[in-house]
Amino acid sequence: MKPPKPTKPVKRIRGRFIVLEGGEGAGKSTQARNVALWLGEKGRDPVLTREPGGSRLAEAIRELVLRPWREGVDGTTELLLMFAARAAHLRATIRPALAAGRDVVCDRFIDATYAYQGAGRGLPTKQIDTLATMVIGDLTADLIILLDVPPAIGSERVQNRGSGNRFDHEQLRFAEAVREAYLRRAKKDPGRYAIIDAGGKRTDVTRAIETVLEARL
Amino acid sequence: MKPPKPTKPVKRIRGRFIVLEGGEGAGKSTQARNVALWLGEKGRDPVLTREPGGSRLAEAIRELVLRPWREGVDGTTELLLMFAARAAHLRATIRPALAAGRDVVCDRFIDATYAYQGAGRGLPTKQIDTLATMVIGDLTADLIILLDVPPAIGSERVQNRGSGNRFDHEQLRFAEAVREAYLRRAKKDPGRYAIIDAGGKRTDVTRAIETVLEARL
Repeated sequence: MKPPKPTKPVKRIRGRFIVLEGGEGAGKSTQARNVALWLGEKGRDPVLTREPGGSRLAEAIRELVLRPWREGVDGTTELLLMFAARAAHLRATIRPALAAGRDVVCDRFIDATYAYQGAGRGLPTKQIDTLATMVIGDLTADLIILLDVPPAIGSERVQNRGSGNRFDHEQLRFAEAVREAYLRRAKKDPGRYAIIDAGGKRTDVTRAIETVLEARL
Repeated sequence: MKPPKPTKPVKRIRGRFIVLEGGEGAGKSTQARNVALWLGEKGRDPVLTREPGGSRLAEAIRELVLRPWREGVDGTTELLLMFAARAAHLRATIRPALAAGRDVVCDRFIDATYAYQGAGRGLPTKQIDTLATMVIGDLTADLIILLDVPPAIGSERVQNRGSGNRFDHEQLRFAEAVREAYLRRAKKDPGRYAIIDAGGKRTDVTRAIETVLEARL
């Protein structure tokens, strides 16, 4: 018998890239932690991160975006800062982790840009597409969990946790535009997105997410 | 005789946009001040500003770009931060001043991006073109004064004024690439650019610039 042919060097399998998306008060941060815990229980060593942010430089950019500026922050400036933060985050955190075979659980990613800067602030989708190509290239999330919640419920949660006031009329309209943009994107690509009804009890949402994780990962 | 036709409302003439460009140690900041003084003597009320920077938010972005980050700052992140700062600067400072009929004297603008991030750091010209269209639109400088200085002289000046060490080999190469990019751009559009030999005495450079200002403005 001939010896087996030399095989190519084992290619390390890249980790899985899992993103949680949703409007204010959808429970993304809590559920992102739960997803990381779930992966840990399965013997994985996930990286839990968030956008904007996820590296020192990206967190500093986040702080600039969120700070109230007397001059205001126009849409284009905000968009470019978001993508600058994303470029730093990808380079310092996401790509190295995935390349090392670690899963990455990210609280918000590119969908948030289409939802907030695009649908919310009215920036052209084409501009976002261009920047996405420049910064992200062909990296795509393996699973995007969209926590869908009606703005009225999100508003109440934000108020209850003390991280803001109940949305005013303008904020409700903005939140509705964001929600619709998320749902539009998710419905176009059901293989990658999972839409979770996040309007109910937290434990129910966690259970619904775990069902998705069991089925898809 | 018929009465004269009603004329259109007087359109306020926009101010002139004058940019100073050049490598390290070319004397841009000093000469930008001189240009503003010269305009003041002519009865204008110029705005003297700089890039990256020129508004509170843009200056904060500048500080992020210049800070040493342990994770490093990759070219794309730097490019996006530069354009985010530029968008803020245009909105808060440059466009309002020009619209009010004031001249703007700016220490560096878009040419610096092509020279530093493009030729220096090797980012694709097309990316810079795309971002320039997004952020600057069709605004163009009326006069771009390129202070041209051989890197060896620039290096000595930077050292003498205590703002850095003599360039090492890598920095000299970088400065040479930057210089060539500046000259290439200037030579393609001699109507808008003025190339000034900035290797000599400061007063000679100032006089050469004033000759250009007298002839062109």
